[in-house]
Amino acid sequence: MQPLARGVIAPKGFLANTTSCGINSPQGSRKDLVVLDAGRIASAAGVFTTNRVQAAPVILSKNHLQTGMARAIVINSGNANACNGDTGMENAQEMADLIAERLSIPPDEVLVASTGVIGHPLPMEAIREGIREAIGRQRNGSDDDAAESIMTTDTIPKSSAIRINLEETSVVIGGIAKGAGMICPNMATMIGVITTDAAIAPGALQAALRKAVGKSFNCITVDGDMSTNDTVFILANGAGGNALITQPSGDAYDRFTEGLEHVCTDLAKKIARDGEGATKFVEIRVQGAQSDDDAHTIGMSVANSPLVKTAIYGRDPNWGRILCAVGYADAESDANSIDLFLCDHQLTRNGRGLTFDEPLMRDALSTEEIPILIDLKLGDGSATIWTCDMSHEYVTVNAEYTT
Amino acid sequence: MQPLARGVIAPKGFLANTTSCGINSPQGSRKDLVVLDAGRIASAAGVFTTNRVQAAPVILSKNHLQTGMARAIVINSGNANACNGDTGMENAQEMADLIAERLSIPPDEVLVASTGVIGHPLPMEAIREGIREAIGRQRNGSDDDAAESIMTTDTIPKSSAIRINLEETSVVIGGIAKGAGMICPNMATMIGVITTDAAIAPGALQAALRKAVGKSFNCITVDGDMSTNDTVFILANGAGGNALITQPSGDAYDRFTEGLEHVCTDLAKKIARDGEGATKFVEIRVQGAQSDDDAHTIGMSVANSPLVKTAIYGRDPNWGRILCAVGYADAESDANSIDLFLCDHQLTRNGRGLTFDEPLMRDALSTEEIPILIDLKLGDGSATIWTCDMSHEYVTVNAEYTT
Repeated sequence: MQPLARGVIAPKGFLANTTSCGINSPQGSRKDLVVLDAGRIASAAGVFTTNRVQAAPVILSKNHLQTGMARAIVINSGNANACNGDTGMENAQEMADLIAERLSIPPDEVLVASTGVIGHPLPMEAIREGIREAIGRQRNGSDDDAAESIMTTDTIPKSSAIRINLEETSVVIGGIAKGAGMICPNMATMIGVITTDAAIAPGALQAALRKAVGKSFNCITVDGDMSTNDTVFILANGAGGNALITQPSGDAYDRFTEGLEHVCTDLAKKIARDGEGATKFVEIRVQGAQSDDDAHTIGMSVANSPLVKTAIYGRDPNWGRILCAVGYADAESDANSIDLFLCDHQLTRNGRGLTFDEPLMRDALSTEEIPILIDLKLGDGSATIWTCDMSHEYVTVNAEYTT
Repeated sequence: MQPLARGVIAPKGFLANTTSCGINSPQGSRKDLVVLDAGRIASAAGVFTTNRVQAAPVILSKNHLQTGMARAIVINSGNANACNGDTGMENAQEMADLIAERLSIPPDEVLVASTGVIGHPLPMEAIREGIREAIGRQRNGSDDDAAESIMTTDTIPKSSAIRINLEETSVVIGGIAKGAGMICPNMATMIGVITTDAAIAPGALQAALRKAVGKSFNCITVDGDMSTNDTVFILANGAGGNALITQPSGDAYDRFTEGLEHVCTDLAKKIARDGEGATKFVEIRVQGAQSDDDAHTIGMSVANSPLVKTAIYGRDPNWGRILCAVGYADAESDANSIDLFLCDHQLTRNGRGLTFDEPLMRDALSTEEIPILIDLKLGDGSATIWTCDMSHEYVTVNAEYTT
């Protein structure tokens, strides 16, 4: 597995072009639309928000993914196209239609994602113009531009890419992602787009994506809010020339999935690190749970606790808040068996506090990377969750008056 | 139902005395222990935290409540006596023993509650002295002192009392409460203590308390964190002279339960209003749900959303965040049928945004009482939830370095 300093167009045959069409900021001021083209029809898969309120592009893309094949993806930032009723569906469809027309492909080979303010109709005039411009370019765009065009309150663009060996050949997996959880100026979204030149059948690709997302994007949280637009897409165009992976099993499948998980995890951690107002990156490892699911539930409970997050912001080695969040998680735990380590210092044994050096702990908590290890000592289940602290800036970012 | 400007010693025969024994602040600086005496053995009931991590006094009091009878309650603030292992249990037991000895009653007639920092052993020297002093007084204390002695980061003491008619006679229900959710300087607790001179059998009392708590203390949230110590006690000493309420049914039972619910709701709303860093009190009414449980789940999801809470703090009529929190609640809803009213202004019809006057909405959100009405239009289920906004001060309070 070889890391590449690239992103979503690192795999062979992918094109990405961006525009600044003025969706929620003056035209030309920031990139807000990207068209990604796999160059040929590709195996395609997606994972979506489980929120009962689903944005129009989510509904449309789920529908288009029924064939397991797609060629292009269009994403806009600045507007989520959520809660817009029939108009929202019509606009999402028109975005797919416009791409399809320009690429001379059926509309159901186009996937759509949107992120930004909700409840406002898409400015279709700007979007039509943007799509025309993006798709009309003769040269390929850049990985960074693609990552930048889907940002909302993200402070840095997020890309990742690796090369992996599959028997005789090597293939590349690349990706871009944006914004964790819910984001100012209004509710926004987590979006991930993964590309690969591996040859893999749609069923195997969907299985691999679901597995990788379960260990990456589903293991991060900024504030526990889940958006109406969360989406992860993958396109596999087969340009890498490996023997087609037909089933979700076997050596090549396992290697591919491992590589995919690596890219997704890298992107997910970048999202957590860039959480709104974050000053610290927190890695919560839960082990000794009765199952992996229990470990995940407990880790998320700790990661979402405003009291744990503010304590970390305040450099307070407040293990009581952590144990408490373990206790109210909907998963098995026993207060009398928990060993807790904060920044590699053991603070409890069997659920009871150990004496510790307070200035030392405060120093340890002054770093930007905070590891928490929770050993439940009940079984073999484990999970790792990534999050950030909660600062004054989080409140500022989310309390700003913007609608 | 006649409101009284009183508290926990408003009902006949109850005594409360407080001390300032120096549990987590210098002796004499703040009241930190109260002994409440029903004057005779009383019907007793309790409702406790469902956190898997339970503090020693919670375990002890559950045990003592098995008989359905008790006479006295001792509560300390400044230390939660949680996560202290065997020492914690021994200390909680000693608190009950000391009271029992002074009142010449069996120790299992004493209930215990603690609130404050966790993982620190109780300073038993101070507590022994405090109990001796409190119980040695010849005169009765005051309602306000009792309410004050259980405060942690609460900014105001919380009392409530009413008189209700039961057939030929009238009885009084009084109560005190402290701090919602989780509280600085460390994890703390919601504690409620209700007293009444009504005559009611233990089984009926437990049923009435569970019902009243379900519609009051279980309908508030500050930050979604649930403590290790949450406790609501009730003692009914029968000094009011009504005909004993023997069963959880009938006119007298219904009236008593209604009165109890009134006192509990009053106290619960006072807690939400005094949430950490709160600048606004928020009442979330959910109606048209498929069941009352669904309505409660959806209301709590909205009330716990940091994005909703920060938007309200920032006077942002961000209905998208509210709809989103409805959508990710684990309860039935349909995005295309939700009518949403914020400060009595309708912002969505059938899940779609209506145009509204922004300056007007911002003005409406400048008040200290924010009503939210969510009509799901699916059924007859309803619930009302009370919470507060999330401010910079919330982060400050909870990030302070204190251990």
